[in-house]
Amino acid sequence: MTVERLVVIGGDAAGMSAASQARRLKGPDELEIVAFERGHFSSFSACGIPYWVGGQVPERDALIARTPGEHRERAIDLRMRTEVTEIDVAGGRVRSRDPETGGETWTGYDKLVVATGARPVRPPLPGIDAAGVHGVQTLDDGQALLTALTATAGRRAVVIGAGYIGVEMAEALLNRGFEVTVLNRGEQPMATLDPDMGRLVHTAMDGLGITTVNGARVTAIRTDADGRVRAVATGDAEYPADVVVLGMGVEPETALAREAGLPLGVYGGLLTDLSMRVRGHGNIWAGGDCVEVLDLVSGRERHVPLGTHANKHGQVIGANVGGGYGTFPGVVGTAVSKVCDLEIARTGLREKDAAAVGLRYVTAVIESTSRAGYYPEPGVMTVKMLAERRSGRLLGVQIVGREGAAKRVDVAAVALTAGMTVEQMTALDLGYAPPFSPVWDPVLVAARKAVAAVRAAD
Amino acid sequence: MTVERLVVIGGDAAGMSAASQARRLKGPDELEIVAFERGHFSSFSACGIPYWVGGQVPERDALIARTPGEHRERAIDLRMRTEVTEIDVAGGRVRSRDPETGGETWTGYDKLVVATGARPVRPPLPGIDAAGVHGVQTLDDGQALLTALTATAGRRAVVIGAGYIGVEMAEALLNRGFEVTVLNRGEQPMATLDPDMGRLVHTAMDGLGITTVNGARVTAIRTDADGRVRAVATGDAEYPADVVVLGMGVEPETALAREAGLPLGVYGGLLTDLSMRVRGHGNIWAGGDCVEVLDLVSGRERHVPLGTHANKHGQVIGANVGGGYGTFPGVVGTAVSKVCDLEIARTGLREKDAAAVGLRYVTAVIESTSRAGYYPEPGVMTVKMLAERRSGRLLGVQIVGREGAAKRVDVAAVALTAGMTVEQMTALDLGYAPPFSPVWDPVLVAARKAVAAVRAAD
Repeated sequence: MTVERLVVIGGDAAGMSAASQARRLKGPDELEIVAFERGHFSSFSACGIPYWVGGQVPERDALIARTPGEHRERAIDLRMRTEVTEIDVAGGRVRSRDPETGGETWTGYDKLVVATGARPVRPPLPGIDAAGVHGVQTLDDGQALLTALTATAGRRAVVIGAGYIGVEMAEALLNRGFEVTVLNRGEQPMATLDPDMGRLVHTAMDGLGITTVNGARVTAIRTDADGRVRAVATGDAEYPADVVVLGMGVEPETALAREAGLPLGVYGGLLTDLSMRVRGHGNIWAGGDCVEVLDLVSGRERHVPLGTHANKHGQVIGANVGGGYGTFPGVVGTAVSKVCDLEIARTGLREKDAAAVGLRYVTAVIESTSRAGYYPEPGVMTVKMLAERRSGRLLGVQIVGREGAAKRVDVAAVALTAGMTVEQMTALDLGYAPPFSPVWDPVLVAARKAVAAVRAAD
Repeated sequence: MTVERLVVIGGDAAGMSAASQARRLKGPDELEIVAFERGHFSSFSACGIPYWVGGQVPERDALIARTPGEHRERAIDLRMRTEVTEIDVAGGRVRSRDPETGGETWTGYDKLVVATGARPVRPPLPGIDAAGVHGVQTLDDGQALLTALTATAGRRAVVIGAGYIGVEMAEALLNRGFEVTVLNRGEQPMATLDPDMGRLVHTAMDGLGITTVNGARVTAIRTDADGRVRAVATGDAEYPADVVVLGMGVEPETALAREAGLPLGVYGGLLTDLSMRVRGHGNIWAGGDCVEVLDLVSGRERHVPLGTHANKHGQVIGANVGGGYGTFPGVVGTAVSKVCDLEIARTGLREKDAAAVGLRYVTAVIESTSRAGYYPEPGVMTVKMLAERRSGRLLGVQIVGREGAAKRVDVAAVALTAGMTVEQMTALDLGYAPPFSPVWDPVLVAARKAVAAVRAAD
């Protein structure tokens, strides 16, 4: 029997899920698997870093789902600290750099998985490489930040960026006893929400003692004579800082793919078909933070870097590479987060997303609670719902509130996937008992108001 | 303009929601609304009684959504403590008994809403009317029980029944410092779950110090010389009791409807069409705990007494009575509950429900957590999923677990409504962040295992 070789570039969620799933389907007598990872860790939870830095997760290793050794025990030849420097598509091979000798080696493949992930946005600001300026993308980043937080006498932290990473890091730094200032380019924090919902996040952050500066364009990071950070400058102010955390989001890491001539989308992510095969390439798959995915609501490709998608991509790729079958139909854009006890969730389209694809819509905003109003700690939340005009089709939901708010967005995520109208949603049979919901679940209250808005707009 | 008269029988969730919604659509110059309620309270939350008895809800009035006075301010002529004793369908009138004089009056109607609710199951056991034996259906019941709990020196409580009411009352009595024994006729507590999932509830109740006796058939309630309860007898044992709570479920209260010749189903509930109009009667609607509803998964009528459905029925009836339009398409059988910190949820069909309608199915049972495994208090839960053989269509989900478990069932409720297969569910874009979910949400883990089970059974 011929042994095929599968090469995987990237040893994190998508790549190693693909490798593991392929290995379940095909043994080493049928499929050799070689995986390259340029970093020190495999299969770790980057999403968990804020909670490790914040102290809820006591140690780094808790964030590692599977060590290199564990992968190797499953007959996956995982080569750590080994960077792939070129993909030769015509030759069916990849070139990698040996971490010890620095020498380069070509490795042929029958099938290739590109899972190169994303890189943090890091604008070329003066001072961005100064001591005391930290990214939070890798476990090494997290360790360096934790060490700095302990070593620093000062207690002023500036977070640049107010998206998921920014607000989660603001919470972590608050937990560590820092005075936290968040510098936000946008109109309100959490640009993944509409500004009216982002304003609720802003207000809550104020209440927590986190200073949020909206419309802040960072121009430089100021250092002292030793080259250590001392402040962050915007056009019109300087914010003193003993430590700076960069949370400006990530971009697909697709330099290799671009050089190899693989197809990229408008966000710079690899383009695949529904089986996660790179378009136009029969034996190359791609998944995780380096690809663009179909948004099922807008019909457009988007870049949605999230561990949960990366794991699903890996499963699908592994099934297909291993001789099975799987597809990843797309996303509806669900995301949840929190800053201290404020929960933040979204799915589907924001107002500007709907407008950008020519959809006309109505909105409904309601306040309700996560439990019956008479039950202790009812958990106030605001739910915003977008529905298409005329058809009444659900387009998106955003939720900001207290305990029990965020995961309610899943109901809307399923309804979006099923193409439900807000009228249909009003009849959904959602779980009711006083400790879990008011007699009308907040999502149903929003749907009822959205129905009225659809009718009023007709 | 002719003023029509709407008569509503029953002043609780379904009846008063219908009246209120009709009033929103039509003013008193178009529609006169007369409502009859035989009890002392209108529009109260019976589901909240266990939490009032248990002490989480400090006072009775918190459970009253709208008082009779508030309804009257909205031009609804709500007549309290006034029992309807006959419906004369041919004559278009109802007979009621005046609470002061005992005299009877006929009131004509153009449109009638029957919302007579449900009555607790109360078998004719010797001693069932003894002092110290309590139902928990009305606010008066709750007050009587609370008074008894304070007045009783003894600290032994027996709950008869291990459904929602039974386990919620067990928690309430435990909170009040009682030693609690639950006598359960069935194989395991929570007969709304499959026995393997009910066993998890049993184990958790053991851990809380609640004694559960399965297969217990109560034969008598023993009293002392003063006529006060002293024990509950089953075929083979006696359980000492200072207080007894009846939690054996409810049946549709449809004696009036039966006498009037209105159509009843196999569970004794009124049968309606999708607009909640009583079948064969153009000007009579019915809703709430006195009707049977369509189960969208099995295609059969069921009796599902739940406040959330009653409210929806009321909205639909009110819209139709008021000249608008609404339908209640049916239920998928979602219910959530808890006993102390154990959460219990179900939706769709149990194994025996599926078998009863001739569906062949596979099952998948998984254990997972409500948060990332490395996050504090991850909240262990067990998820059971049923899928149809061959088609892979989702048939039902049951969840038993810790914080964050119960409301996950809503995802399955929406998927059932949409007719999704378990394969489709594996791609659902559910919210992920470490404080809210593992990277694979427990529902997705169950769906993946169910997919494998469907394939293995083919």
